[in-house]
Amino acid sequence: MKELKEKILKFGNPINENVLKVDSFINHQVDANLMNLIGKEFAEYYKDRNITKVVTIESSGIAPATFTALHLNVPLVIMKKTTSKVLSDDLVQATITSYTKGTTFELTMSKKFVNKDDNVVVIDDFLANGQAAMGAIKLVEKMGANVESIGILIEKSFQPGRKELIDAGYEVYSLARIKRMSKGEVEFEE
Amino acid sequence: MKELKEKILKFGNPINENVLKVDSFINHQVDANLMNLIGKEFAEYYKDRNITKVVTIESSGIAPATFTALHLNVPLVIMKKTTSKVLSDDLVQATITSYTKGTTFELTMSKKFVNKDDNVVVIDDFLANGQAAMGAIKLVEKMGANVESIGILIEKSFQPGRKELIDAGYEVYSLARIKRMSKGEVEFEE
Repeated sequence: MKELKEKILKFGNPINENVLKVDSFINHQVDANLMNLIGKEFAEYYKDRNITKVVTIESSGIAPATFTALHLNVPLVIMKKTTSKVLSDDLVQATITSYTKGTTFELTMSKKFVNKDDNVVVIDDFLANGQAAMGAIKLVEKMGANVESIGILIEKSFQPGRKELIDAGYEVYSLARIKRMSKGEVEFEE
Repeated sequence: MKELKEKILKFGNPINENVLKVDSFINHQVDANLMNLIGKEFAEYYKDRNITKVVTIESSGIAPATFTALHLNVPLVIMKKTTSKVLSDDLVQATITSYTKGTTFELTMSKKFVNKDDNVVVIDDFLANGQAAMGAIKLVEKMGANVESIGILIEKSFQPGRKELIDAGYEVYSLARIKRMSKGEVEFEE
């Protein structure tokens, strides 16, 4: 997606080969116009796929996912990050390890909001090792629903997430795919 | 705001005199069309107030605040909840105690995204004791910026937050003001 790639080149801050800071337009300060365009782009891409729900993970995915839900005219479900396992018949949980931050959390969702008739697209800001996306898929599938696709804003294509999701049979649609990075430089896939 | 009050009456779940669950349309499952209407309502209300930034607190405020920012055509800044104090010249922090959850967190914002020329509206989903709003105000004012107003989706008018903010000299604009609640019942202010 042209507008997102331009923003990354202009305002993204690649601080080393693995970390791209996008805190001036995606995950701390947020460019709402860009989020709206991103939502329109995803909605256009998924419009004939009978999507019934958009699912995301708090909190960086919320802004683009809300606009995707708006333009697809379906509800958004936000999966929560909690620090501990909760024993409750109303919830489903999956343990996620973030390699980037070296932390573990319990991805948590109420059973009320996804059911076996749902056809879900999972939206997230980054795809790196794929742990968050895999956790989201696990919770959606625990409810008997179908994961139609994974929609990503920025994919670090040199990390294993994309391949693992595709090898597991999922579609990944990324708006910007980064082939390699170094301090101050970003190169996109063709 | 009529649409929000109707949703609260139809889908809100007042479980006792103090707790209103809105997890089916605001903070777990999200009604994106309602969030867009809310954003339009805030933008209409604040349109002649020279707002330069919308500020919110992760994560329930993000969806309505992003739409408010879109319709005001200004950036959104998301204040983060972190568990520990961070010593950094790039950040400002304020300690917030949540009476509802019995927890404490450090509200955190990068200094990059708010400065002395900013005129800010703080958007949040709930106003109860006002701790979160007061923390957000503190961080905005630490940067030398002006807090023009506090925009709230649901105000529990029987709790002290509104009065404390107004006594401290701030404007509070709430889209739904709840006078009293009991299990299964919600009564709005006139």
